[in-house]
Amino acid sequence: MRAVDLIERKRDGHELTTEEIHFFVEGYAEDHIPDYQAAAWAMAILLRGMTVRETIDLTMAMVASGETLSLRRLGPVVVDKHSTGGVGDKTTLIVGPLVAEAGLPVAKMSGRGLGYSGGTLDKLEAIPGFRVDLSPQAFFDTVSQHGLAVVSQTADLAPADGKFYALRDVTGTVPSLPLIASSIMSKKIAGGADAIVLDVKVGRGAFMETVPEARELAQRMIDIGHGVERRVTAVLANMNQPLGLAIGNSLEVIEAIETLRGTGPRDLREHCLALAVEMLLLGQKASTPEEAYEQLDEILETGRALDRFRRWVAAQGGDPDIVDDVTRLPEAPVQHTVAAPRSGHIARLDARMCGLTAVTLGAGRETKNASIDPGVGLVLHAKVGDHVREGDPLLTIHARNQQEAQAAARRLLEAYAWSETAVQPEPPVYEILREDA
Amino acid sequence: MRAVDLIERKRDGHELTTEEIHFFVEGYAEDHIPDYQAAAWAMAILLRGMTVRETIDLTMAMVASGETLSLRRLGPVVVDKHSTGGVGDKTTLIVGPLVAEAGLPVAKMSGRGLGYSGGTLDKLEAIPGFRVDLSPQAFFDTVSQHGLAVVSQTADLAPADGKFYALRDVTGTVPSLPLIASSIMSKKIAGGADAIVLDVKVGRGAFMETVPEARELAQRMIDIGHGVERRVTAVLANMNQPLGLAIGNSLEVIEAIETLRGTGPRDLREHCLALAVEMLLLGQKASTPEEAYEQLDEILETGRALDRFRRWVAAQGGDPDIVDDVTRLPEAPVQHTVAAPRSGHIARLDARMCGLTAVTLGAGRETKNASIDPGVGLVLHAKVGDHVREGDPLLTIHARNQQEAQAAARRLLEAYAWSETAVQPEPPVYEILREDA
Repeated sequence: MRAVDLIERKRDGHELTTEEIHFFVEGYAEDHIPDYQAAAWAMAILLRGMTVRETIDLTMAMVASGETLSLRRLGPVVVDKHSTGGVGDKTTLIVGPLVAEAGLPVAKMSGRGLGYSGGTLDKLEAIPGFRVDLSPQAFFDTVSQHGLAVVSQTADLAPADGKFYALRDVTGTVPSLPLIASSIMSKKIAGGADAIVLDVKVGRGAFMETVPEARELAQRMIDIGHGVERRVTAVLANMNQPLGLAIGNSLEVIEAIETLRGTGPRDLREHCLALAVEMLLLGQKASTPEEAYEQLDEILETGRALDRFRRWVAAQGGDPDIVDDVTRLPEAPVQHTVAAPRSGHIARLDARMCGLTAVTLGAGRETKNASIDPGVGLVLHAKVGDHVREGDPLLTIHARNQQEAQAAARRLLEAYAWSETAVQPEPPVYEILREDA
Repeated sequence: MRAVDLIERKRDGHELTTEEIHFFVEGYAEDHIPDYQAAAWAMAILLRGMTVRETIDLTMAMVASGETLSLRRLGPVVVDKHSTGGVGDKTTLIVGPLVAEAGLPVAKMSGRGLGYSGGTLDKLEAIPGFRVDLSPQAFFDTVSQHGLAVVSQTADLAPADGKFYALRDVTGTVPSLPLIASSIMSKKIAGGADAIVLDVKVGRGAFMETVPEARELAQRMIDIGHGVERRVTAVLANMNQPLGLAIGNSLEVIEAIETLRGTGPRDLREHCLALAVEMLLLGQKASTPEEAYEQLDEILETGRALDRFRRWVAAQGGDPDIVDDVTRLPEAPVQHTVAAPRSGHIARLDARMCGLTAVTLGAGRETKNASIDPGVGLVLHAKVGDHVREGDPLLTIHARNQQEAQAAARRLLEAYAWSETAVQPEPPVYEILREDA
């Protein structure tokens, strides 16, 4: 078997066999197949597509390239969650303690932010002392004792995926449905998940800009799961405007605490509850969505989720007192409130522009090794559908200096579209796709 | 400008600007853009195509990556010929002396054979003493004095093309119309040609298997020429069966001599005359095809072409006495004549199978650095349309040993298809495409 023949077969639109896909992925992982052949193969896959069967094989070939975690001792069904990335997405900080308190262990590996989209690890590291680089044993022990741990992805799981993703990033081969689906699923499967809730963001601040595209990606991942006996549920969630009101690492930790306390923004709460409901259903902690919702609602209302968050933060070395005193979190020196330039209903609020502006303030990174500033970001005071009057506070920018704050303010005003008449905001969740049981 | 953005633009089907194409080719030639990005770009071009304008820009960017030869002192119009490769193609050995004798200087760079298709340099090197590695000055002087020289391509001309072609060879990105067209044209333009006759082979023993495909490639090259003020004529020629009767390096030199003497096979003679006619027209040595044909026919009949061949061989260090004593050429130790297995009309004779069998006999190379045996090959005694009787000599195999001869014989019998009824052979030339003058 030769790599060039497999490139040609895919180029000409043929379906590759299981053996061929394993040959290519293994050869690439072991450096027998060079980057340039993998790049040509990736472009051929992007433009020609892959069948469900091929995508399953690609996923499992990625899994086979490294170690796999076994989390069987944590419980009968290990449920994981994956969010496809967005702006203001602090769901793991809320959903984690919530479902852990409902009795479902959460052993989660997360990533860092890149481009306009934030990363869970960066948010957690805004908490003084919080450590994300636990050893496998410490990771496992933390979940066993506290029901919850979130750590950085290790290079030992699906290493072929890590190598291939880095190549795709510089060869224009990221936006391919089978490549995205197999990349996400391989990491989750190698991480030991039996069941997975996918939080697929849709809209201007997400990779998938339309519901049909997102549905297609979600369905492909459900199909992969079906092929390898992992149950998968996908929640298609609105990312046209930012999720919640806060964007920026410290600011999002604060908003997560508020949400766990019951005082957070409604869209964020509903989004997190929708994900948590699906996790409980897959984890067999509830038999109907209604039952799961009631259980989770009570956990929030009684403050048990917030207590769990506090214990979790402490378990990973973080300062638990941030929960009662958020000034212990890093703060930006400048806080600049922007007034509404006109009266009207907010018709649109471009999530991507918000995310990109947060990056320029220092909240995210444009290149992989850039450092970030945990204190900076922005807090919205109104969202789509809200009516504001000229001069009302529209948002507050947290910046390193006045100049950056002013520049961000000018840029952010461009992110709004206004309407004279009332605007009905879109729901936080568009639809939920469950595998036919 | 970033390479990844240009990959993405082409991936998404957009037309690249002149500046973008030059940026990419120059960056690749100078090692600023890595192989893996060039491979992804090539695959995107293969699957998305390029406009004529983009193909012209790609051609001239390749030309700009290295030196260009100036042959202006050789005459008012420098005409070159390019054959797209085939089986039994010894046209340069015949057309060269023919048009040189008609007063048109031939300063030609050629390549070596790869796969089933032979190379002019390998054939010339079958002549004892013949040197193809002349210095630029010696090359120029030989053409000045003898009207004709054929040398190996230098790495200084269109080096980006050489680098890119080697990459395409291992990344499944060879069969792309704009990439093939720009590769051929860049080398010819860098080599100093004002006008080019393209000998585009069509059929089982050629890269282009159908006339419409070949016409499309030819038209693209004519369009490139038109865009950069080079006149281009394309001859679409039959390569379903081998050209002439001989395949193999010494054997093809012998057949070229026979053809120059007037005793060669008719299809080869007609093919060579068609090419030579077009060269004279572009070189303004004749004003009509009929006038050119008459002139060339006389040059052949009077033996002047053969004399020119003899002087040319001597000028490049070869033994001119091979013309009168072909036994001075390398000979294979075993000559094995294969009898016709049945009576009938030959309906098909697969050129590719003949070429591949010649390679296994040692006449060609399967990988770039393999060595070849000049003496081996095969000589057909009948071609498509001929009637043979069972037991008649069908072909003679020239091999290194009996075992290889037997194996080749078994394989070659598979290359024939037979008919009970008479078969009309296809013409050697399908059609001629001239730029509208």
